[in-house]
Amino acid sequence: MPILFQNVTAVLMDAAHTVLPNAFVAVEGGRIASVGAARPAGSFERVIDGRGGILMPGLVNCHTHVPMTAMRGYGDGHSLHDWLNNFIFPVEAKWDHRAIRACADLGLMEMIASGVTCLTDMYMHTLTVGQAVADAGVSANLCCGMVFFGEEFSPAACGDCKNQEELFQTWHGYDDSRIQVDASLHAEYTSKIGLCEWAGAFARDHGLNMHVHISETRKEHEECKQRHGGLTPIQYMDRCGVWDGPRSYAAHCVWTEPEDWAIMAQKHVTAVHNPVSNLKLGSGVAPIPDLLKAGVNVALGTDGVSSNNTTDLFEDMKIAAILQNGVRQDPMALTAWDAVEMATLGGARALGRDTGAIAPGKWADLILLDGEALNLIPCHDAANNIAYAAHGCDVVLNMCRGKVIYENGEFLTIDREKTLAEVKQYAVPLLFGK
Amino acid sequence: MPILFQNVTAVLMDAAHTVLPNAFVAVEGGRIASVGAARPAGSFERVIDGRGGILMPGLVNCHTHVPMTAMRGYGDGHSLHDWLNNFIFPVEAKWDHRAIRACADLGLMEMIASGVTCLTDMYMHTLTVGQAVADAGVSANLCCGMVFFGEEFSPAACGDCKNQEELFQTWHGYDDSRIQVDASLHAEYTSKIGLCEWAGAFARDHGLNMHVHISETRKEHEECKQRHGGLTPIQYMDRCGVWDGPRSYAAHCVWTEPEDWAIMAQKHVTAVHNPVSNLKLGSGVAPIPDLLKAGVNVALGTDGVSSNNTTDLFEDMKIAAILQNGVRQDPMALTAWDAVEMATLGGARALGRDTGAIAPGKWADLILLDGEALNLIPCHDAANNIAYAAHGCDVVLNMCRGKVIYENGEFLTIDREKTLAEVKQYAVPLLFGK
Repeated sequence: MPILFQNVTAVLMDAAHTVLPNAFVAVEGGRIASVGAARPAGSFERVIDGRGGILMPGLVNCHTHVPMTAMRGYGDGHSLHDWLNNFIFPVEAKWDHRAIRACADLGLMEMIASGVTCLTDMYMHTLTVGQAVADAGVSANLCCGMVFFGEEFSPAACGDCKNQEELFQTWHGYDDSRIQVDASLHAEYTSKIGLCEWAGAFARDHGLNMHVHISETRKEHEECKQRHGGLTPIQYMDRCGVWDGPRSYAAHCVWTEPEDWAIMAQKHVTAVHNPVSNLKLGSGVAPIPDLLKAGVNVALGTDGVSSNNTTDLFEDMKIAAILQNGVRQDPMALTAWDAVEMATLGGARALGRDTGAIAPGKWADLILLDGEALNLIPCHDAANNIAYAAHGCDVVLNMCRGKVIYENGEFLTIDREKTLAEVKQYAVPLLFGK
Repeated sequence: MPILFQNVTAVLMDAAHTVLPNAFVAVEGGRIASVGAARPAGSFERVIDGRGGILMPGLVNCHTHVPMTAMRGYGDGHSLHDWLNNFIFPVEAKWDHRAIRACADLGLMEMIASGVTCLTDMYMHTLTVGQAVADAGVSANLCCGMVFFGEEFSPAACGDCKNQEELFQTWHGYDDSRIQVDASLHAEYTSKIGLCEWAGAFARDHGLNMHVHISETRKEHEECKQRHGGLTPIQYMDRCGVWDGPRSYAAHCVWTEPEDWAIMAQKHVTAVHNPVSNLKLGSGVAPIPDLLKAGVNVALGTDGVSSNNTTDLFEDMKIAAILQNGVRQDPMALTAWDAVEMATLGGARALGRDTGAIAPGKWADLILLDGEALNLIPCHDAANNIAYAAHGCDVVLNMCRGKVIYENGEFLTIDREKTLAEVKQYAVPLLFGK
């Protein structure tokens, strides 16, 4: 039996930038059945009255490390090197599956409550994160961010190659591909050429997306060029065949160069912009208008909570929208629509998923914003309100593939109280000894 | 009868950066009576259990144009000149008192719900804004941002001089100085020397603060130097005696120079940083670390909703905290504490108000953050959570001068439904003809 949304302002995220007032959106079998100004015929299992709120595609968070909620604000105020070596790495050595699950559930709740319907995860213990995602009802692309620090690479000598294969066997395609597994490399500076080639072949052979950290800091970018005869991380990875799968997405891209953008456009490599993390860690400002102009798809990510320190993608959307204007001293460097598109359709394109827009046949990944939220009144332009005025807490309903998983502060797939107790009483003592 | 907060993590905003877990804070006669780790003796009219949440000083929004809520997102995506001349100014010609009151109440509700206890307003129909503030229970510094476009200045020929005097007579000192009136100039480019001198004398004669827009855009800054023999707006205003009152606060300061900072430090001119507005409008990035290093007090503002497009000062606090790190490629350019101080104590210093910290004798301007908010768990460091992870919607209680004016989504001094009806059914049709 289908579900009907009525009394909503529907932001379709189509090429015509359609905003449909007083819209009706019907959902059936997990997908959008119809969109229009008239009530569709038929009977409905449930009619959801949007009370004048905005109905929009769920947000796609294309770069995050979900269980890192545990380290929210831990070691902030230290230099990057000090922070990683003296705060993050020692804690990460202590993770177990139970703590990962609790902290992943906390991260998933935070994302769901603030409008994310699809996300990526690149972290540790990813088999466990897969179960958390399976239970939560969101869509996710999982990867393990392979590293290799040894001298002579061979798949047998690389534990992460085994992790990549096991993750693929366990979760890829789960629940009509609600979960997908991506091939992934952590980064150029944590790999050897053999691993890069192996990862590229794995993506190509299995038809998988590729996810890599690229040119996040100037140091990383310049040191790669020194190591590889002037090749940037994008160019070096290209030589290794890393971009030879169907599509790829590169997190950060702060220091990418014009030659990189041409490769990215040609090889379907999305730039995943993480503006909060890039600012907070002092990495810089990614050249987003240039990437867009070069024909590169751009998506948005929050990065891990440890470098953000929330997973409210509305915040990243706003900062993405205004940051380029400010640093380029051009009030029209990016538009509100550009930012909303990055957070929805751009993410769908990055992951090759049939979501990020409201149109018949798309997955019913939908969020409803509170029509009575003070910060959304009046509404002269829905896209402006979404990009500049909305907060994650304005989300009153989150529907993933036709199933309501969050409504008016209640989580329907995750036990909030149990999760918070596990985080506070188990994970935090385990990781931090307190 | 006093009120007691218990079971809170109190962020005192003192010089020692004290964060007091499991604190007790007692309030009596509108002021903070005691702060400590032990329950104070005596009986209480009400005991507020903070359930582990953060109790902190209320935020001080030092630059805003409160009634501009009506223009939220109106004309976004146009160049500054086009936006002002073809969108904002024609609408502003239509204001009446009833619309101002409704839109001011909407703005005040948005600020109160997101933790502001003290604000400034520089706009039109300020006598009416004064009544809204008086009824809302917050503290405010009101000014009318005087302009003069005529040839020969005389106080009699300048309507805004009359407005300044009337505002001063009507509202200055109201309710034990909960409302104060500041002297103010809109900006150098909207004044003549006579008005600047008159305003400076008015501030000096009446012991008032001075509030001015300063060096917001490069164009404004450079054109001032051309007009006045190389003097920047800060320097020109200094020559006119504008900074000769007890203290002043200058909004934006994006293009100020080292010589300006020295004058600001010497003459007690606060820089009010409006990072969202400066980014969104393409104005640039204010040199905040340099201002701080030069000994200038820094406060925070949201600017008007029309250039933000919300009044959530937590958002500005976060962007202030991370923006300098990013553009200076230094993860320690500003700390979390720096940003929280700008939003609290820095604002109190700017306005010369006895607020912005939790200490016996200070006004009881206090806000409580939800201890169960997902984005504030875990809490390794309360200041980090406030600056980087908190959202305005985490505020569950707002107390101004010892009186609770907002709690768990309910406004105790403003009629929310009546206000929204007035905005939608009266103000929006009046201003926009729809």
